[in-house]
Amino acid sequence: MFKFKILYRDNQSLARLGIIITPRGVIPTPVFMPVGTQGSVKALLPELVAALGYKIILGNTYHLLLRPGPAVIEMAGGLHKFMHWKGLILTDSGGFQVYSLSGYRKITDEGILFRSHLDGSEYFLTPEVALDVQLKLNSDILMVLDVCIPYPASREETAKLTELTHRWAERSLNYWQGKGKGKALFGIIQGGMFEDLRKRSAQFIAEHPFDGLALGGLSVGEPMEIRNAMIEAAIPFLPEDKPRYLMGVGTPLDIVEAVIRGVDMFDCVLPTRNARRGSLFTSQGMISIKRSEYKEDFTPLDPECSCYTCRNYTKAYLRHLFLSKELLAYTLLSLHNLTYYGRIMQEIREAIRRGTIFELRDKLKELYEKQPQEEENGSN
Amino acid sequence: MFKFKILYRDNQSLARLGIIITPRGVIPTPVFMPVGTQGSVKALLPELVAALGYKIILGNTYHLLLRPGPAVIEMAGGLHKFMHWKGLILTDSGGFQVYSLSGYRKITDEGILFRSHLDGSEYFLTPEVALDVQLKLNSDILMVLDVCIPYPASREETAKLTELTHRWAERSLNYWQGKGKGKALFGIIQGGMFEDLRKRSAQFIAEHPFDGLALGGLSVGEPMEIRNAMIEAAIPFLPEDKPRYLMGVGTPLDIVEAVIRGVDMFDCVLPTRNARRGSLFTSQGMISIKRSEYKEDFTPLDPECSCYTCRNYTKAYLRHLFLSKELLAYTLLSLHNLTYYGRIMQEIREAIRRGTIFELRDKLKELYEKQPQEEENGSN
Repeated sequence: MFKFKILYRDNQSLARLGIIITPRGVIPTPVFMPVGTQGSVKALLPELVAALGYKIILGNTYHLLLRPGPAVIEMAGGLHKFMHWKGLILTDSGGFQVYSLSGYRKITDEGILFRSHLDGSEYFLTPEVALDVQLKLNSDILMVLDVCIPYPASREETAKLTELTHRWAERSLNYWQGKGKGKALFGIIQGGMFEDLRKRSAQFIAEHPFDGLALGGLSVGEPMEIRNAMIEAAIPFLPEDKPRYLMGVGTPLDIVEAVIRGVDMFDCVLPTRNARRGSLFTSQGMISIKRSEYKEDFTPLDPECSCYTCRNYTKAYLRHLFLSKELLAYTLLSLHNLTYYGRIMQEIREAIRRGTIFELRDKLKELYEKQPQEEENGSN
Repeated sequence: MFKFKILYRDNQSLARLGIIITPRGVIPTPVFMPVGTQGSVKALLPELVAALGYKIILGNTYHLLLRPGPAVIEMAGGLHKFMHWKGLILTDSGGFQVYSLSGYRKITDEGILFRSHLDGSEYFLTPEVALDVQLKLNSDILMVLDVCIPYPASREETAKLTELTHRWAERSLNYWQGKGKGKALFGIIQGGMFEDLRKRSAQFIAEHPFDGLALGGLSVGEPMEIRNAMIEAAIPFLPEDKPRYLMGVGTPLDIVEAVIRGVDMFDCVLPTRNARRGSLFTSQGMISIKRSEYKEDFTPLDPECSCYTCRNYTKAYLRHLFLSKELLAYTLLSLHNLTYYGRIMQEIREAIRRGTIFELRDKLKELYEKQPQEEENGSN
């Protein structure tokens, strides 16, 4: 059985400490889920991801639908077994990648017709198909198919696509009956960048018996203020006793801002993608390992970090590996960034308990508002 | 102190079991050294390489000279510390890569003028510079600079370049006096593909007080029969009590053939490079992970292998990772191939002890003569 329990509520913000209980394990919230796009958290052995304390990762239905296909993963005994991951897996519905990667798409009431970005072959994704695929992957937490709304979009278009998302949510629930024993199905709130549409969508999705509630269509290029306003619009309509998941977000600052507003779950490619681009999160802010000043810098990436990479390697070495395009660079830097995110989540949970979440937010603001970020969106 | 001891001699072949004793560790021979080109055994954490039982790896002086440069590695405290490798390191002299990678080279009596393949900048490599660089890297076993002879080459050119290699060997020994405490310096036998020149070179190098003796300029495209003939020509002139190293070789079959002829040490990019190209060594011979028949094959790469990859992943998953260009593919496949090589070396040592080296050779011949090999040369 899937359960969510709130253990503690912050009395200065909407932040809460909780646990998600599933047959496969227990997860403290607020939680960050590393992204394992195509059945692998890029460049990392699953044991390393687990050793960093991560108990849940995200898999991308779109990517796995195209390659190797749900039939192969089902025959393998599900995605956990296929990829040798002993923790939990949440899968998205594929809607976001259809929107961001697929070259051709046609949305009808029935579903989305799209072409694979790999070979141009045609797929028809419906709410039912999205669940079927995720059931074959054997995910622990499944997401309903929603319609991603372009940014910017008119009010009219946003309203229309949000309504469609709602109809698909109901179809998903109907189809779900009796299917996912021990699994959880999350609904997705749309509403684009319009407060009233967000509220209406939150209200609609909250009225339905989903196991958790996600905020979709954010982190698509909008300013942080707008994103935060959209979260604020939706949250009051959501039941207290269900986990809230902000999809595809974000930087450490984005995350703490959302936690303050009552969000419990996050996923983002940022730590791993930035690592592969040589961009590292540290207690001093972002650093680029490419910088020539690190050529003879024999200190670790972050003096306050005790990750495997920081314990055993210097900036000079990591810069050398990165500039030499050595594959080990991506492993070591990804390890570091995921360690950083794990520590931030722990700090967030501790700050909630201690009533110091705003201090933590201000610290992260200091660190991350000064510097331009690498692009931060997309679950690829 | 560097020491080599023979523990057991095969009485049907020239194969011998030995140990190399150094201040940093003891290595059983025959030994295979994985290649860590640019300060990393590609795609593998050093702990994983060590966990496979490897105690010595090879570093490429040419690559490290160009990037990050010997000064950086010296400041880092040497290559072991720089790359977090606790085992031994043998470094080549750079001569082979100057020959195979550098666009421009001019050989004089003094040394080799060449341009970096990275940025075209000019370097002048002499026997003394080659040792200086390796001393800065803090290698345990250093190689003298030799002149790589093109294949095919005329007798005249081969003789001329072999003579130059000999003069450089003597210069290297002179320069070495009092420098490499606890370290070993190996001489390199040239002589191209001419038996008498090989003999003369072996005789010349063997007369000098090197700690070990290497066969250079083989595995440059010549047929296996010629290579084996060149080994046979040289070996009788080499002292029994020094390790013999066949540089850049080779396939499991190449290795066992050389062991039978009295060789103790090997290095090759084959296991790691083949892995990155999806080509795997198994108890059934080579397989390509790309093959469509593996799409739904949920068995391990090799049913007789107990490596981490074979214990935890299926061909279907590895094929998926490889076709998706997931970085983890290179790690998992490299781990498997290096495990295979480690096991082959263990089988070779056991076969020497049991007097069954020819049976092992025949088994490997059966496996590897049928199939075309991936290109097998080059320490890149």
